Amino acid sequence: MKIKVNENFGNLKPNYLFSETAQKARKYRAEHPDQKVISLGIGDVTQPLAPVVIEAMQKAVLEMGVKETFRGYAPEYGYDFIREAIAGYYVNKLNIAVKANEVFVGDGAKSDLGNIVDILGDNRILIPDPVYPVYMDSNIMSGRSVTLLPATAENNFLPTPPDDDIPSVVYLCSPNNPTGAVYDYDKLKKWVDYAKKTGSLIIFDSAYESYIREDLPHSIFAIEGARDCAIEINSLSKMAGFTGTRMGYTVIPETLTSGEFNLNKMWARRQATKFNGVPYVVQRAGEAVFTERGLKECKDLVDYYLENAKLIAELLEKKGVWFTGGVNSPYIWLKCPDGFDSWSFFDYLLEKAQIIGTPGVGFGANGEGYFRLTSFGSRENTLEAVARLDKLL
Amino acid sequence: MKIKVNENFGNLKPNYLFSETAQKARKYRAEHPDQKVISLGIGDVTQPLAPVVIEAMQKAVLEMGVKETFRGYAPEYGYDFIREAIAGYYVNKLNIAVKANEVFVGDGAKSDLGNIVDILGDNRILIPDPVYPVYMDSNIMSGRSVTLLPATAENNFLPTPPDDDIPSVVYLCSPNNPTGAVYDYDKLKKWVDYAKKTGSLIIFDSAYESYIREDLPHSIFAIEGARDCAIEINSLSKMAGFTGTRMGYTVIPETLTSGEFNLNKMWARRQATKFNGVPYVVQRAGEAVFTERGLKECKDLVDYYLENAKLIAELLEKKGVWFTGGVNSPYIWLKCPDGFDSWSFFDYLLEKAQIIGTPGVGFGANGEGYFRLTSFGSRENTLEAVARLDKLL
Repeated sequence: MKIKVNENFGNLKPNYLFSETAQKARKYRAEHPDQKVISLGIGDVTQPLAPVVIEAMQKAVLEMGVKETFRGYAPEYGYDFIREAIAGYYVNKLNIAVKANEVFVGDGAKSDLGNIVDILGDNRILIPDPVYPVYMDSNIMSGRSVTLLPATAENNFLPTPPDDDIPSVVYLCSPNNPTGAVYDYDKLKKWVDYAKKTGSLIIFDSAYESYIREDLPHSIFAIEGARDCAIEINSLSKMAGFTGTRMGYTVIPETLTSGEFNLNKMWARRQATKFNGVPYVVQRAGEAVFTERGLKECKDLVDYYLENAKLIAELLEKKGVWFTGGVNSPYIWLKCPDGFDSWSFFDYLLEKAQIIGTPGVGFGANGEGYFRLTSFGSRENTLEAVARLDKLL
Repeated sequence: MKIKVNENFGNLKPNYLFSETAQKARKYRAEHPDQKVISLGIGDVTQPLAPVVIEAMQKAVLEMGVKETFRGYAPEYGYDFIREAIAGYYVNKLNIAVKANEVFVGDGAKSDLGNIVDILGDNRILIPDPVYPVYMDSNIMSGRSVTLLPATAENNFLPTPPDDDIPSVVYLCSPNNPTGAVYDYDKLKKWVDYAKKTGSLIIFDSAYESYIREDLPHSIFAIEGARDCAIEINSLSKMAGFTGTRMGYTVIPETLTSGEFNLNKMWARRQATKFNGVPYVVQRAGEAVFTERGLKECKDLVDYYLENAKLIAELLEKKGVWFTGGVNSPYIWLKCPDGFDSWSFFDYLLEKAQIIGTPGVGFGANGEGYFRLTSFGSRENTLEAVARLDKLL
């Protein structure tokens, strides 16, 4: 063909991280079939959906098989029952004023984070390094120039605003993937102050807010003034184990504007044009998550993972290994001991302890010399992995 | 804020069609509460999901509640079981060679049609008028210039290729929404020949292929040479009643290239970056559709709607009203009798027969003087509507 394609795709880096770790793991397992390899590298949940969610889905499935209760196309931004449930969660559980018409239900944070570029123009983009790849890649696909915000041990992997006056689109994720670092109120306020001063937009990824157990902000909108400069994107994936069920939501204040354009209305138009809603059975599943029973059952799920994280964190503390995360996050981001670089440490852990983790350098240059462990495995595997690390380190 | 937004959104036309018909319907119902208003305007299915689909979803929901069978993140382009089922449908039911790695499972044609612009550059866009809005709006959002292909009574609402040599991106939908017109092999070959001659790309929307009952092409890939110049996007919405369940698929031949870029690989990268898969329970639902029992049960669903269409079509023939569709499509596209324009005919049908349809002009300028009726209602309502039209026309 002779048509023009989007040549920005040529600027994408090949995405080898997880396929490379998987390949090395496969090779090791094939060469050592008698050994039990434990993965602390997985970014996916392992516990099943909560009982209240299963019950809601069963009921919804039955409805879909009967003419009188069958549901066709959903309302564009989600059924009222789920938009109100989410707004209610903000108001009643997070003490933050959010209206149902500011909540746009989608099929997960990855989609909304990827598609939000559709409503934005060509701005300077600020993205932390290390980072979750979708922020970067979606902007490269759009031909945007990205400026990296260094996350380092010096700033506890919590990048601070630059000292300039450039209206920017800033991606923040807190609690962070991959580092598990969490912004406190003061640090987050500095970002909101920067955004207000410069006329910038903060795109806040709050996918792990349900892992917070200390007094830290669960939402960008916990900061005064954020309604004028921020969009929040959250997901039920890690909160409720919906990685294979797919539901998330984007909150855009109805008064969020730039020039004559209202971003709430723009996102509404984008979704009404290019999206046709979340499945009915999944919206009912999501509704169940936000009931009192659902929040309790999902909190139990999250607590399970947090207990795993605590076991790993305690071991690292005992060994004097520097790390962030592990407390308000399912991720532990550790400095490789003894001067190992990320991939050498990966190999070392795999060969000497049969544990798989994720090399920090795979998330960005500032990840070199660091390593991510996750707490999503089973308690048994986590305990065994911790015992192995105790011997090895 | 001072950030730049995508100002192309300012070029979108306000999308009033369905909200305006809904508003008029609401007003009429409020003013005539004793009258039964029947909608033949709805583009949504009304029959429940097939029993085999419900059974598959029930089983999958139960699996999601048990640790040993719980599913997290799906493989990026769909589970093998569904990609193979779809490829098998092409090979065994449509006699068209398609490989599983050419099938990308998504959450519906609207999303894929909306997002395919991500991999394309700035080309001349050819879109029929009248048309399904997403082709137009997604391109306007991308700042593309659209050239309209006139669909008229003269060409039986089947636009033909222009007489030029410009590499273009062409959107074709057959069987068509809103007109119900269907390309035969000869006419479709002319488009493939044009695409090959000019180096153009055909984006073929085959969402209604399961409604074809005569000897007409079910897929662009039924035409020799189309693998070098076409992408096909299909959906289970109208085939299996999945409007509220959400599954579709995009077929991109693994050898489809433009310059150095391979479009199959580009779409794979786009989806791997900005999408996180279809829910497990929905993929199992889709798998059930493509079993022998599923295809039979879904064919019964489609036949039910086609029988409704036939009743409407027979009445219009009896009255000497010109129309397309109604035979291999759930849509009937009629010329408004007695010189009515689209909206006047809408008002006339509503006030005199308490029937709601959709004014053709809402789909484009070439729809003026035309009107769309759909067959998705119940048999009872369709019979009653036909009786009312018999009296009125």
